[in-house]
Amino acid sequence: PKAAKPPAPVNIWSSLTVNDTTTIYRWLNEPSHDLNLTSPESAALSDNFIYHIEAYRPSKSDALRYLESPEDSNLPERYARATIHHGTVPVIKDYLVGPLPVSENTTMRQLTEIYHREDIPFNARGFAFPSEFTPMLMTYMPKIASVTQDLFDGVAMGLPNDTLVAGAVGPLSFDGSFRRTWVNWRRNVPGPWLHPVNFFQYVDLSGNDPAEWKLLKVVYNHQVFPTLNAFLAAYHNGTLRRLPPRPDQDDTDWSARYRPKGPPRDLDDLPGPRQVSFAGLRFRVDRAAQYVSWLGWGVYLGFDRDMGLSLWDVRFLGERIAYEISPQDALAQYAGNDPMQTSTAWLDRFFGMGTSVRDMLPGYDCPYEAVYLPATTYAPFGSIHRERAICIFEHDTGRPITRHTGWEKGEFGAVRGYVLTIRSISTVGNYDYLFDYIFHTDGTIEVRVSASGYLQGGFWEPAQEGYGTAIRDTTMGSLHDHVMNFKVDLDVAGTANSLLYTHTDTEEVERDWFDDDWGTTVVQQKITREYIANEDAARLKYPLNFQGGYAFVNQDRTNRWGIPRGYAIHPGYSPVHNTVVGSRRLLKNADWARYNLAVSRRKDAEPSSSSMWNMNLPGAPPVEFARFFDGEDLAQQDLVAWVNVGMHHLPQAEDAPNTRTNVAASSFFVAPLNYFDADVSMDGANAVLLAPP
Amino acid sequence: PKAAKPPAPVNIWSSLTVNDTTTIYRWLNEPSHDLNLTSPESAALSDNFIYHIEAYRPSKSDALRYLESPEDSNLPERYARATIHHGTVPVIKDYLVGPLPVSENTTMRQLTEIYHREDIPFNARGFAFPSEFTPMLMTYMPKIASVTQDLFDGVAMGLPNDTLVAGAVGPLSFDGSFRRTWVNWRRNVPGPWLHPVNFFQYVDLSGNDPAEWKLLKVVYNHQVFPTLNAFLAAYHNGTLRRLPPRPDQDDTDWSARYRPKGPPRDLDDLPGPRQVSFAGLRFRVDRAAQYVSWLGWGVYLGFDRDMGLSLWDVRFLGERIAYEISPQDALAQYAGNDPMQTSTAWLDRFFGMGTSVRDMLPGYDCPYEAVYLPATTYAPFGSIHRERAICIFEHDTGRPITRHTGWEKGEFGAVRGYVLTIRSISTVGNYDYLFDYIFHTDGTIEVRVSASGYLQGGFWEPAQEGYGTAIRDTTMGSLHDHVMNFKVDLDVAGTANSLLYTHTDTEEVERDWFDDDWGTTVVQQKITREYIANEDAARLKYPLNFQGGYAFVNQDRTNRWGIPRGYAIHPGYSPVHNTVVGSRRLLKNADWARYNLAVSRRKDAEPSSSSMWNMNLPGAPPVEFARFFDGEDLAQQDLVAWVNVGMHHLPQAEDAPNTRTNVAASSFFVAPLNYFDADVSMDGANAVLLAPP
Ligand SMILES: [Ca+2]
Ligand SMILES: [Ca+2]
Ligand SMILES: [Ca+2]
Ligand SMILES: [Ca+2]
Ligand SMILES: [Cu+2]
Ligand SMILES: [Cu+2]
Repeated sequence: PKAAKPPAPVNIWSSLTVNDTTTIYRWLNEPSHDLNLTSPESAALSDNFIYHIEAYRPSKSDALRYLESPEDSNLPERYARATIHHGTVPVIKDYLVGPLPVSENTTMRQLTEIYHREDIPFNARGFAFPSEFTPMLMTYMPKIASVTQDLFDGVAMGLPNDTLVAGAVGPLSFDGSFRRTWVNWRRNVPGPWLHPVNFFQYVDLSGNDPAEWKLLKVVYNHQVFPTLNAFLAAYHNGTLRRLPPRPDQDDTDWSARYRPKGPPRDLDDLPGPRQVSFAGLRFRVDRAAQYVSWLGWGVYLGFDRDMGLSLWDVRFLGERIAYEISPQDALAQYAGNDPMQTSTAWLDRFFGMGTSVRDMLPGYDCPYEAVYLPATTYAPFGSIHRERAICIFEHDTGRPITRHTGWEKGEFGAVRGYVLTIRSISTVGNYDYLFDYIFHTDGTIEVRVSASGYLQGGFWEPAQEGYGTAIRDTTMGSLHDHVMNFKVDLDVAGTANSLLYTHTDTEEVERDWFDDDWGTTVVQQKITREYIANEDAARLKYPLNFQGGYAFVNQDRTNRWGIPRGYAIHPGYSPVHNTVVGSRRLLKNADWARYNLAVSRRKDAEPSSSSMWNMNLPGAPPVEFARFFDGEDLAQQDLVAWVNVGMHHLPQAEDAPNTRTNVAASSFFVAPLNYFDADVSMDGANAVLLAPP
Repeated sequence: PKAAKPPAPVNIWSSLTVNDTTTIYRWLNEPSHDLNLTSPESAALSDNFIYHIEAYRPSKSDALRYLESPEDSNLPERYARATIHHGTVPVIKDYLVGPLPVSENTTMRQLTEIYHREDIPFNARGFAFPSEFTPMLMTYMPKIASVTQDLFDGVAMGLPNDTLVAGAVGPLSFDGSFRRTWVNWRRNVPGPWLHPVNFFQYVDLSGNDPAEWKLLKVVYNHQVFPTLNAFLAAYHNGTLRRLPPRPDQDDTDWSARYRPKGPPRDLDDLPGPRQVSFAGLRFRVDRAAQYVSWLGWGVYLGFDRDMGLSLWDVRFLGERIAYEISPQDALAQYAGNDPMQTSTAWLDRFFGMGTSVRDMLPGYDCPYEAVYLPATTYAPFGSIHRERAICIFEHDTGRPITRHTGWEKGEFGAVRGYVLTIRSISTVGNYDYLFDYIFHTDGTIEVRVSASGYLQGGFWEPAQEGYGTAIRDTTMGSLHDHVMNFKVDLDVAGTANSLLYTHTDTEEVERDWFDDDWGTTVVQQKITREYIANEDAARLKYPLNFQGGYAFVNQDRTNRWGIPRGYAIHPGYSPVHNTVVGSRRLLKNADWARYNLAVSRRKDAEPSSSSMWNMNLPGAPPVEFARFFDGEDLAQQDLVAWVNVGMHHLPQAEDAPNTRTNVAASSFFVAPLNYFDADVSMDGANAVLLAPP
């Protein structure tokens, strides 16, 4: 693509380079810091080791100062956040390290101001290494191999050719006092999530000594056994109520992405239409600065372990629209009648939506013309680099953005509808989340999440009625809600913004000019515009029948017609919030999911509505969203909106093998609201103005 | 495009040819029918003349018989509907004429079974000729030309260079006992709807004698005058409270589609991306039969005066999904503080959404590769033929329909997301409605209406606060709701269908396998599935937070997993219904707008939820939707869903000059729900399956 000209040469939100992290890693290991670190490769859980190193983004005031005068002397000091697993205690702590690059001025201190608790309990920690509890499972699964072979036609011996593989559920803890999960077993075939065998163990994985980890309970076909021996005894003495045979599961190809047999559909042997920019791409990319510009838009890209792609300093026609737009967390709360589904409330930030990004499939995940950008995230065993982590492409919507066929000169024409999409796809185990930021020529941004990938399946039996749908004789898709939260730090004509609630109601009013034909009154609607003055009133749902909406406006900056300039947050597809309120598994750690959106004062100390440890600490989360709402005034302040998208996922046969992105989609718009004096997309050069007939 | 192979050679829903209408016209004029007809060109309102001639669609049973065995002997007899303005009485009657072609067997009878009243009152009639009341306005406007010149800088003399033009509002009547409207004056410039001068007259246009039409009232700047003389007296004696001067309106280019001055945006001098099917188009079109097929889909197109494009016998992978999908009416109800906006409740079927279709602008209204189909509608002064009334194009959505990046063989791949769009655009005066039917490879159809064109503007002044937004110092966009109703006659695995309501609620249940870690209960969601048994319970709103939905299922046809095969009606963008209930201007004539959707037994006698005369008969409509809901049983019956899309249009500066289709959009999906055994889009040949890394 053509070279871009970022408004400031340095992307101050960029990730650390591998060299940065290596240097910080070495610096932290210097004995003077007294951290007693062990290399992650050889560390035991009871050792101290570095779990994560990542850029810590500058304060907004430092950032704005630099953007205002992008001279090197104004560059914000760079810092890193380092997460250390203090296995010796055990406890987790986050540190701020900097300024960078490492020099004699570099220091470290514990990072606490962005959390609502001092330390992270060790039982809420992230996985230190993949399948870290496999050894514990192998203390008992090989012993019962003949039984699992008989019951499930599979064994788990800890070998590459194992025919059963384990899954587990989260949250792993409530408040850090324990770390326990329900292990569930699946057949080791393509799409194992659709092949649960209905065999569960509750296991304790608390603390820093895997030798103390133990099995607490066994569940098979609704029968609960306190020990493995009790389960084996029932099996051997014939009191075990066995599951029915599963002839429907002999063939496992149905859960793979194999093309069904049969000829292609009529003309599907031909390639489909393909977008071509015959005179070259119209967007610009600065690969070094990770900056993209297109038809008046400009945006810096960020990327992190927890949530992947984020947008910074989003400008349109020379003015900043948003300082930051970034995903915060992705909730998936399940329901069911087995230990696994009843216990699952994923917050995928735990797993790292950024780390989970894989290389996109050119021509399939994005059109042929797309330009890809790389991303690198730190992992304890070596940085993960993805060359195609982000794609950027312009797209013809196939629909004019405005048009009219009039009868007078000047009325007859159309402007083509083009959009620029910036996309990243995270595959977290079974699920694929497509994050799209879609920029329109009128100043609108649509933020859309589409889902694909595999369902989290259950064993279908009549007792599961109401908790999902059979997608095979003995496999079901389990009922769940998805809610994804976005931080939308709009700065509308500056940072001093107010929260406008516009709503409509019906009125019956008298009018002088009426007479008997229709009565002297009229029943009609009327708009009320009011400012929501306080955070306590700013946890919001879309009004019934969408009779109204929310916008950020700058009361001190009006458009030419005297209306405060604003940007609205407008619902798109599937504007839902979480269904379940009151589950202990999401007690306080995902309150953002209860609303369609919420608006709070923007704070450097409230950079995110969640954290990677929130999943495992529903009772005492590091980030407690509700505490952002402490009665602060919202009038002409720097505000941030926390906006949800989501889907109520009632599985159906058509979710197999993978969920379809066309209906599994949710979005919102950020759209100008009297921000301009008129529609600016009218300046499009790809327009036609005809003489009327 | 490539030739199509329609399942039956004759499109039994096709429009009449010009030859057909000419023959019927002659036949009706035969003295033997005793209709005493005058040619529309020379007819007075007090004469009898033919207002409309159009194909009358066959009964569904006749149609299905032919589709089952498409032999000529099974072809349904063809009939036409003829609307005659009996000015001599005066009254309007609809007649059924057939069988066609005209022969000695052809007869006529009054068509009453599809209406809830016998005749149409003459005061509810359609316009017999364009601006038919201009002569009446010219009885007084030239007289006050010096006054209008002084007050509004314009005159209406009935000349081509008039600087003022008239608008009027509907409904024109309540129950047919009168025909009256508020005339409002606009400057005769591009986009006159944005140039109201705030001058209104209430005029009586009742009956069949224009000589009796008269002015009833004059309103200027909230001052009501019973006569023109009273208004003139106030003007001359200085008691008239005058409107402020309007320097903002000197330049009128702002309401034209002229490109704003200034250079193009960066790179906008280049053409945007363009879709190309390098190996040729993949959809087939039979231009004679107006039949389209694409990747397993097949559909016949219909076209009529009232609502334009409709879809018939929609089949996917060999099975009929829908017998009919067709728009029914388009409501636009306004609010304001002047005689015009307070009195407006358009039902655009009155004007003819089909007749209002203009030739689309190739490359702008549809992509370059689109194939266009013509449509012809009857008009009293000669048929209107549009060569580019409908466009058809395949589009790459730029997003895979399914994808997963797995770690096991068979899990790693994607299928491209292609759609076929069939589009028609109606421009009804100021407004442009884009009707899109978007077919997906998984069996989903999205029905989307986008709006563009001009606002219906008002004169902005502080007294209009709450009724819209200033888009100029003295022009406002007026608050209004759009609701468009679609007839969706799904036939899911046959015509015997039931209405499934699926919803989710929260439950707290005990489970044996829990212990103290999380308590012995779990709070989770659960699905309830119930059949709505009776029409009385089938006027529906989407549940709060969209926790549930509606589907047509055939309880006697299950997919391979024993689930009744179904198709869901799934909300898309802006799933709203009308805000105002209780207005006399929509008392009984648009009850469909009160819900998100409604489901009734399909009846040949209930072909539509509206009629062209419904607008003018809110008190006694020809089609009274509420009467469809008469307690009939919905279990395993031929059902039809009446589904709404709509937008609450709170105007904003960015609506000028024209509304943007990206945010002014509303849609619903018709999507398989356990209709198949698995996702059928997996058979796509434009797919990739890779070895996992
Ligand atoms: Ca606060
Ligand atoms: Ca802000
Ligand atoms: Ca009925
Ligand atoms: Ca039906
Ligand atoms: Cu899901
Ligand atoms: Cu509108």
